[in-house]
Amino acid sequence: MIDQAIEQVPTKHDGATHSDAKPFFAFHVFVCTNRRPDTHPRGSCAARGSERLRDYMKARAKELGIGSVRINTAGCLDRCELGPCVVVYPQGIWYRVQTTADVDCVLTEHLAGGEPARDLMLPP
Amino acid sequence: MIDQAIEQVPTKHDGATHSDAKPFFAFHVFVCTNRRPDTHPRGSCAARGSERLRDYMKARAKELGIGSVRINTAGCLDRCELGPCVVVYPQGIWYRVQTTADVDCVLTEHLAGGEPARDLMLPP
Repeated sequence: MIDQAIEQVPTKHDGATHSDAKPFFAFHVFVCTNRRPDTHPRGSCAARGSERLRDYMKARAKELGIGSVRINTAGCLDRCELGPCVVVYPQGIWYRVQTTADVDCVLTEHLAGGEPARDLMLPP
Repeated sequence: MIDQAIEQVPTKHDGATHSDAKPFFAFHVFVCTNRRPDTHPRGSCAARGSERLRDYMKARAKELGIGSVRINTAGCLDRCELGPCVVVYPQGIWYRVQTTADVDCVLTEHLAGGEPARDLMLPP
């Protein structure tokens, strides 16, 4: 279903905009690594360990041989209370990723398996 | 056409994945601010002024009153030679944004106007 979405998203633009057949990255993952002072009421993703999880995600995606993926660092995604936050585009699916096991789950279920890791998804 | 795509992207997932009616941000903009040494053969977006352009874009988007947009800092987007690089999701449209006039063009044509700023788009 996701693969289908990926194929279809760019065609929505074809008539009026551009003719890309596919997105540049099938999965463009952004991991928030914003850090606020520990006393900030909203907290921050980096304070919850997101930098280590990003590093693990990059290494693990390579290890698993997942193709056409880019794991990117991002500044504050503005959903701090729910973090550590990760968003996967062009699907636009948001996750709370707290542990390396959560990272594995996103990589294997969503990126490799083609179905979002439902248990980790943020509320709409 | 873009609005239509935004509305339709999430529905591709509805059957199998989740039920978000809309993306969390209608336009989620990532500006590469990666900086490499000036002598690096690929160059880098920050060395080409992307940090200043990101700051301008944030301020200008507010000034123009563009709703449901998030302008984010991003690490290296891996299209360095074509930078300063910007990608707008969930549409997945990539731009080379070299000047504040280019920023204005992306904001007014794509984000406010609903049509990608074709002249600034990166090749597929």
